[in-house]
Amino acid sequence: MMNAELIDPFMVSTEQVFSTMLGCQLTRGRLQPRSHRLIPEYEINGIVGLAGSISGTVVLSMQERVALRATEAMLGLHPSFINDEVIDAVGELTNMVAGAAKHHLSTEVNLSIPMVIVGKNTRIGFASNVEPICIPFQSPWGPVQVEVGIAK
Amino acid sequence: MMNAELIDPFMVSTEQVFSTMLGCQLTRGRLQPRSHRLIPEYEINGIVGLAGSISGTVVLSMQERVALRATEAMLGLHPSFINDEVIDAVGELTNMVAGAAKHHLSTEVNLSIPMVIVGKNTRIGFASNVEPICIPFQSPWGPVQVEVGIAK
Repeated sequence: MMNAELIDPFMVSTEQVFSTMLGCQLTRGRLQPRSHRLIPEYEINGIVGLAGSISGTVVLSMQERVALRATEAMLGLHPSFINDEVIDAVGELTNMVAGAAKHHLSTEVNLSIPMVIVGKNTRIGFASNVEPICIPFQSPWGPVQVEVGIAK
Repeated sequence: MMNAELIDPFMVSTEQVFSTMLGCQLTRGRLQPRSHRLIPEYEINGIVGLAGSISGTVVLSMQERVALRATEAMLGLHPSFINDEVIDAVGELTNMVAGAAKHHLSTEVNLSIPMVIVGKNTRIGFASNVEPICIPFQSPWGPVQVEVGIAK
């Protein structure tokens, strides 16, 4: 099981970013260690890499309707499908979650640029030396989850 | 258009890694700047983040049959579907392509852990401050492409 000192910053930062940037209150569920390798995700996934004294990945996963509502809250737009603005909003949210968590990590780490993966039935495979932890949240718009994988 | 000094190392490293690790000779096609934001990819995508004095992402994209043949060549296994070993092989290939390119980059950069995204009709969105370049290759097993996006 991954060190709580590494997970706690991401729990805190996700709630803070959704509250501050989107006016959206998240309710956290129970942490879920992931024993299987290929994780089925929601349709929209923001990914940002961590590289430095630790190496890892953060995945912010949400349903399409949550991504659309988040874009509305963040940019004042009303997208009806996944367009460039939604990609920007989800990428920026992912970046902010990882960036805010970084400040609470007691180690030196840099962020890669965020990527946004769009696709139904997308599965994400972490490297075999990583035991990702899933942090599930409920929002008024639908479920959101953050997965954090740090290499051992 | 992205600086050739940043792209050239990835052209060289992809050919070297496929040749050395898989005994697979790649033929490179013409570089394709990507003007659109959501890029349709092949079914299997290895992703690794670059973070340090430059920030970016490398995506190694291939069809399922190429991933299966690569796993066979790399691990001596004969998978008939996308299983953990295929995920490991594609993740490790992506890591080696980025790692070999890193040595040719005239800048300090660290790699995040590789992730492997599996899904038909997956699209990948880069951040708006990135103009990814696609390097297409043909292999005896099918097409392979490497996308490199570095933040401006």
